[in-house]
Amino acid sequence: MLGDCLENVRSKAPLVHNITNYVTVNDVANVLLACGGSPIMSDEPEDVEDITAVCGGLNINIGTLNQSSIKGMFLAGRKANELNHAVLLDPVGAGASALRTDTAVKLMEEIRFTAIRGNISEIKTLALGSGTTKGVDADLADAVTEQTLDAAIAFIKGFARKTGAIVAVTGAIDLVSDGEKCYVIRNGRPEMGRITGTGCQLSGMMTAFLTANPDHLLEGAAAAVCAMGLAGEIGWNNMKPEDGNSTYRNRIIDAIYHMDKAALDQGARYEVR
Amino acid sequence: MLGDCLENVRSKAPLVHNITNYVTVNDVANVLLACGGSPIMSDEPEDVEDITAVCGGLNINIGTLNQSSIKGMFLAGRKANELNHAVLLDPVGAGASALRTDTAVKLMEEIRFTAIRGNISEIKTLALGSGTTKGVDADLADAVTEQTLDAAIAFIKGFARKTGAIVAVTGAIDLVSDGEKCYVIRNGRPEMGRITGTGCQLSGMMTAFLTANPDHLLEGAAAAVCAMGLAGEIGWNNMKPEDGNSTYRNRIIDAIYHMDKAALDQGARYEVR
Amino acid sequence: MLGDCLENVRSKAPLVHNITNYVTVNDVANVLLACGGSPIMSDEPEDVEDITAVCGGLNINIGTLNQSSIKGMFLAGRKANELNHAVLLDPVGAGASALRTDTAVKLMEEIRFTAIRGNISEIKTLALGSGTTKGVDADLADAVTEQTLDAAIAFIKGFARKTGAIVAVTGAIDLVSDGEKCYVIRNGRPEMGRITGTGCQLSGMMTAFLTANPDHLLEGAAAAVCAMGLAGEIGWNNMKPEDGNSTYRNRIIDAIYHMDKAALDQGARYEVR
Repeated sequence: MLGDCLENVRSKAPLVHNITNYVTVNDVANVLLACGGSPIMSDEPEDVEDITAVCGGLNINIGTLNQSSIKGMFLAGRKANELNHAVLLDPVGAGASALRTDTAVKLMEEIRFTAIRGNISEIKTLALGSGTTKGVDADLADAVTEQTLDAAIAFIKGFARKTGAIVAVTGAIDLVSDGEKCYVIRNGRPEMGRITGTGCQLSGMMTAFLTANPDHLLEGAAAAVCAMGLAGEIGWNNMKPEDGNSTYRNRIIDAIYHMDKAALDQGARYEVR
Repeated sequence: MLGDCLENVRSKAPLVHNITNYVTVNDVANVLLACGGSPIMSDEPEDVEDITAVCGGLNINIGTLNQSSIKGMFLAGRKANELNHAVLLDPVGAGASALRTDTAVKLMEEIRFTAIRGNISEIKTLALGSGTTKGVDADLADAVTEQTLDAAIAFIKGFARKTGAIVAVTGAIDLVSDGEKCYVIRNGRPEMGRITGTGCQLSGMMTAFLTANPDHLLEGAAAAVCAMGLAGEIGWNNMKPEDGNSTYRNRIIDAIYHMDKAALDQGARYEVR
Repeated sequence: MLGDCLENVRSKAPLVHNITNYVTVNDVANVLLACGGSPIMSDEPEDVEDITAVCGGLNINIGTLNQSSIKGMFLAGRKANELNHAVLLDPVGAGASALRTDTAVKLMEEIRFTAIRGNISEIKTLALGSGTTKGVDADLADAVTEQTLDAAIAFIKGFARKTGAIVAVTGAIDLVSDGEKCYVIRNGRPEMGRITGTGCQLSGMMTAFLTANPDHLLEGAAAAVCAMGLAGEIGWNNMKPEDGNSTYRNRIIDAIYHMDKAALDQGARYEVR
């Protein structure tokens, strides 16, 4: 099933509009190309509606938000909603500043998101989010571990039901839920955290998977998470002794480039709860 | 001859001012350094005239244009014209949004471009461009193939004469014309399309070639196109089984870094029509 | 001693706020992760104070400054001063435009910098800087060579005393001084100049070293310079014949990733004058 979702991306080559941060944008573009999608970047308010209209999905990432790009996020999001496009929110740094928290919360109020993907601190901030949350609140968040897994699954399912979006929380254990089912995914490697932007890359790729799998959104989102984690494992196996985090970044995207249906189906490690 | 153009870049080390998109800007900078040029990036209106004044060429790329950078493009372009610098336009996404099409068309009206480089859809949009063209118009464009080659050459020559610029259309077959002669170039590999920004990189590098070869502009532009395509071939030959598009990106820039006059003269595959 | 400074970065994992240019930002983030720090990027005026407050250090780089990010630099800088954070200035292109020179000079007037790092032209521009300096002034600058070393050391010491900041001038020979002592560092390779952003990377990494070594600021700054240069040497030794500047970029960051206390202490080449 998950392998079919990847195959759909490769055969449909979905065009994804990204309003994303300038830190990791090049890797987001290359991973979208690696998985079979096609990226366009645009954040200027006067440009975003036209661009979103020619795409199939929209990826909103607030990692280096500014006053102009925030306007662009709302305009693009509304347009994408009108057109029933897949729309994903990556609330980078929600909880670390009032502007980030407020922007993410307002986006959730005004835009219908197909999926929300973040780390556990960011997602907890959104779940508590009054719009005035300060950075410190994210410190309440606990990592998802085997010990906290049951509570975390219940939390994610509840937030997915409340928002009507698929919620993906990534970390040592990844959780992806539509409110009913929850994929518990154990792919990936801790060294991925030593590369900037694996989360941003996953959000871009997940938008392509959602766009290409409109009838299997939950499976599409889970497939993207498994693919990213599996690429982290394959990429790590291809590391030579002198390779570090910069080369690892390339090897992960390279692994996505070579991944096929069979490899994903065999390599995906998950249970459904 | 084309090899001499590369040698001129290496010996003159032209400083190139880039107003370019934030997606591929790092690769543009590194490919400029690889070919022997030197990059500066600046898009702030208050900054661009000073920066362009210390450079020899200007590369304007509208890939992630915004209201501020658009102002910067006009200011820098006029200043570069005053100083008789080489000025290149890369109309990324012209045809995909009204703002992109309008901006590219107005830039062509107000700035004298030494060269315009884009894909066939973007160039056709500019040729038709009334300033109100919508994204859909680009769909009229056909890829340049052996079957459509004669018509495409006639179109490019006509657009070059009309604009007074060297026009470079890149794709499976690349065409570079000054209105009189047309280089038909068959270097490159299809896998280059799976990397973000090979077009942007070429535009940056072409600006360096134009700046370093003021008396041989057409040959300089053609040399840049051949060099990029040849680097794609060399880089591909250096790929290992596990390498994908992210590593391929590095290998192409690396191939430019090592390319010399003899390699370019021997590897360039073109005819002049 | 220098190795201890690296070890402190790895054990304390300082969070560094970067207001930096979009050309090299991804490499800055990855080198910060490679050395054991943690990067956050934010330039929006409404966002920067909150972000700086959750960090331990601030890296201000004017490489692609704009009106909005300039405001962000002042707001973040004042906040960081209030909180007694380490604050570094990288005056990219000071001397090449009035806006860059003026911005750097005003930042130095209003913000208390822990360290200022640039090339000799940029630092000379700041030392002369009336706020109206034009690009041409940087041409007065001479490279630091064995012949000019004594005068350069005296100049750097004087500028460090005048500003109260640690001053780091990087080039073929690197100088790092607090006004009393001056580290004369001979690590590095000339090929590092063929990669975009090794200076920006060093500024990001130096901010992490300053943040993690508050009681040994001069040694921390010198350790960052030695680490970057040594990584350039190690990375070069790992180059294969077909590798060029793009792969070299990865290998340098990879070398930082693997560097430990012993390697830095053995590989650092410096004298204190």
